[in-house]
Amino acid sequence: MEWKTGITKVEPNNLVTKGYRQEDLIANVSYSSVVYLLLKGELPSKEHGRMMDAILTACVDHGITSPSWLASRTVASCDVPLSTAVAAGVLAIGDAHGGAIEKGAKILQYGIKRMHDENKSMNEIAAILVKESKEQHKRIPGFGHRVHTSDPRTKKLFSLTDEMKIASEHVELSKCIEKNFEKNGKKLPINVDGAVAAIISDMGFDYRLGKAFFFIGRIAGLTAQVYEEITREKPMRKMFDIECKYDGPVERDLPEEG
Amino acid sequence: MEWKTGITKVEPNNLVTKGYRQEDLIANVSYSSVVYLLLKGELPSKEHGRMMDAILTACVDHGITSPSWLASRTVASCDVPLSTAVAAGVLAIGDAHGGAIEKGAKILQYGIKRMHDENKSMNEIAAILVKESKEQHKRIPGFGHRVHTSDPRTKKLFSLTDEMKIASEHVELSKCIEKNFEKNGKKLPINVDGAVAAIISDMGFDYRLGKAFFFIGRIAGLTAQVYEEITREKPMRKMFDIECKYDGPVERDLPEEG
Amino acid sequence: MEWKTGITKVEPNNLVTKGYRQEDLIANVSYSSVVYLLLKGELPSKEHGRMMDAILTACVDHGITSPSWLASRTVASCDVPLSTAVAAGVLAIGDAHGGAIEKGAKILQYGIKRMHDENKSMNEIAAILVKESKEQHKRIPGFGHRVHTSDPRTKKLFSLTDEMKIASEHVELSKCIEKNFEKNGKKLPINVDGAVAAIISDMGFDYRLGKAFFFIGRIAGLTAQVYEEITREKPMRKMFDIECKYDGPVERDLPEEG
Amino acid sequence: MEWKTGITKVEPNNLVTKGYRQEDLIANVSYSSVVYLLLKGELPSKEHGRMMDAILTACVDHGITSPSWLASRTVASCDVPLSTAVAAGVLAIGDAHGGAIEKGAKILQYGIKRMHDENKSMNEIAAILVKESKEQHKRIPGFGHRVHTSDPRTKKLFSLTDEMKIASEHVELSKCIEKNFEKNGKKLPINVDGAVAAIISDMGFDYRLGKAFFFIGRIAGLTAQVYEEITREKPMRKMFDIECKYDGPVERDLPEEG
Repeated sequence: MEWKTGITKVEPNNLVTKGYRQEDLIANVSYSSVVYLLLKGELPSKEHGRMMDAILTACVDHGITSPSWLASRTVASCDVPLSTAVAAGVLAIGDAHGGAIEKGAKILQYGIKRMHDENKSMNEIAAILVKESKEQHKRIPGFGHRVHTSDPRTKKLFSLTDEMKIASEHVELSKCIEKNFEKNGKKLPINVDGAVAAIISDMGFDYRLGKAFFFIGRIAGLTAQVYEEITREKPMRKMFDIECKYDGPVERDLPEEG
Repeated sequence: MEWKTGITKVEPNNLVTKGYRQEDLIANVSYSSVVYLLLKGELPSKEHGRMMDAILTACVDHGITSPSWLASRTVASCDVPLSTAVAAGVLAIGDAHGGAIEKGAKILQYGIKRMHDENKSMNEIAAILVKESKEQHKRIPGFGHRVHTSDPRTKKLFSLTDEMKIASEHVELSKCIEKNFEKNGKKLPINVDGAVAAIISDMGFDYRLGKAFFFIGRIAGLTAQVYEEITREKPMRKMFDIECKYDGPVERDLPEEG
Repeated sequence: MEWKTGITKVEPNNLVTKGYRQEDLIANVSYSSVVYLLLKGELPSKEHGRMMDAILTACVDHGITSPSWLASRTVASCDVPLSTAVAAGVLAIGDAHGGAIEKGAKILQYGIKRMHDENKSMNEIAAILVKESKEQHKRIPGFGHRVHTSDPRTKKLFSLTDEMKIASEHVELSKCIEKNFEKNGKKLPINVDGAVAAIISDMGFDYRLGKAFFFIGRIAGLTAQVYEEITREKPMRKMFDIECKYDGPVERDLPEEG
Repeated sequence: MEWKTGITKVEPNNLVTKGYRQEDLIANVSYSSVVYLLLKGELPSKEHGRMMDAILTACVDHGITSPSWLASRTVASCDVPLSTAVAAGVLAIGDAHGGAIEKGAKILQYGIKRMHDENKSMNEIAAILVKESKEQHKRIPGFGHRVHTSDPRTKKLFSLTDEMKIASEHVELSKCIEKNFEKNGKKLPINVDGAVAAIISDMGFDYRLGKAFFFIGRIAGLTAQVYEEITREKPMRKMFDIECKYDGPVERDLPEEG
């Protein structure tokens, strides 16, 4: 029996990741470019490298409104190791929190493929996707936000993709979908997850890596949250004081034969 | 009741992290410098920024020999979301795996403080720490490695701290301890955890953040491992084929009154 | 804002779970019956209570071959709290490990509903399910085991459902599917997940609770494993010694413009 | 290389746990007695078996005030597998939440040993422990509760230990400490964690297993909570509406050299 890996070769006094000696990477390559190398297999161009920094930073923290944040702080208040509390926040990055990157990228990649296969225009394919999502009563992930109407992260990410000449078909499709929603009377601006979904698709990433951009970026924010909790708050503090109404069965005796 | 946080201000269409607008960070600051900002409260100097990249990259992956790696791949083979499998690896970053950064930084920061308080020389304090660790039958964390005798990551990190003029008392103490071990006939070279412990101490970080440098760096490696597992291997594959000897009580009948 | 819960009412000096005072439950009801109460909303009959004990015990441990076991022991070897190491094992209980209870119960519940809706016989519906699974290249979960050809747990669980008169349509359908596989020349005996899937369906549980029976039972085994690891083994021990072949890009220099 | 385990022997069609065939355990032994077997190595007496049921039930759920509960529900609202959300709650069972069982049992076991070693009376050792905790500004874990002044679970557990003749030195010491606090003008009644700590010590368990009684019991409550969340609430719902005041650095421009 034997294991195979294409990621890191480990020999005494020699570590090689995706072909590059780790000491070379340590001395010369930014961390976000090493992340890119690990997820894509090759080092980024200068433009892709800068975009990678922008994407990870855009995911870094969204304060008290985020479930990963609440999960990490709650667990942190129980006096556990730093990594345990941070991992609890990573667990919260599910289909409904950060998951729109994966699901959004999947649908955009599917849309662009279908556009080429069926010889459609960008506008036609956007209209088809919106129509189908309506018929199937499914939302297209990556549009709309419960706090922001014009997310500053989305705007900046898209202006960078233009500047870096990274924006291509997937970003375009994403904007077409937004316009199509508007035509149907719906204000559903592309949110930060949606923007990341479009950009990583244009950068050639597999949609199955979608959640990774979110949690690799967010882990720094979660760490800061956990550190703030343990340095500024008491263990097991009362986190909120809303009332809880019990609406289960009324108080009763055990049946005769318990 | 009210929450307080010094990390991110969230308002509609405005996100401010440690005072900086997120769109400014996204456009102009590398991700590793944003990590630094979150853990330290201020943006790094150019030298500290480059060191931060080097530290996170030095922690990125150590292949099949690492328990975080095994935990993530094992969980990944069970068909769970990407984040769940990666979080399992983060849980493995405990006192015995990556924990030498926290514990090493603690002892180095204690040593330097004591050196000043007691007016000792660097060599004296190193000798005291080695002697006390011997008497208490406790290892000083951050020395010795089960694979490497001359870890390429440690060498490169230290050459960078020299080049960037970051190396100061904690790095010096760390090297003094290594020499002291050698004088006592023990080959215990500073390992990568020990190097990071010394460097973050010279950069002014709280030792309680020690594990964070490891897991923020390592999460990229864990993600690559999980992605490799789900794209190259079958779910629930047999991971190894070593024998397991049962040495519990011999097979027996239940007692009369089960 | 207000929370609602139908599970436990918490007042000073009074705790009521699903209508019953906790002191009454503590004194008079077995733990497995309290589990039943929590998952089903009512206390079990004597027969259902005994079956609940049997199901949880059937899931308790399967030694070294199980990924949840490997995840827990790996994390335990890193010197973390007991709960952290056990939780890592719970994370491994995914669609490919224990997940056949949920997925198996779903298909059995769907099959029985369809049998009634379409006025089919038990044999007809079993044949349809096997045929469709073949056409869609999907396995019916809960059949076949990589170690056991005649799983002692399955046999005992089914003999108890007969004895307790719990076995009904879902258990019957499950046996019909097994026979149908055999008719097609496939030896795919019902495994312990498949047995639990059928029995909880006959007991009236929602299939979405499927994984719960597995992890509530297995958590005791995982705890014993973690305790054995920390009391009998050294931290960070080498868990296995298989070789790892690196098949990524060959060692290379960084490109000119790193 | 070879693994050793004293827990379960796995052979084709034969599973033996702590000496007993799993089919025998499935048919004849309650789940809580199997838990006891796994943690202690032997099946319980009738009295210990009943006590085990009582202990696990006493830990089962404490509604909305508990951090493990909040962690699980928060993660559950992100659309992840059942096991992922439940595991997040298990991670919250740390030194400050359920940890008083481990730490309380440790101090009680230490106290009783010291009482015998130093030939003290029960009252003397209780007074010493209270005095030392005061001098060291450390609380003795397991006394006082933020909701209950007379916890119904504690009362019932202690009445059962009397009835079952399980209560012995550790329960007695625990009551002596409570009286000693009272003599010093402090109302610090034994809480449920403290009661479990004393009882498992009288039953002969290693204090290092302390958290296990809590999380093995609580996992059923967490499962019910997660199930309630996913069946009654919308994903990513707003969990509370308290205000969050940002008190970090004021909004500012990036420094010239970003």
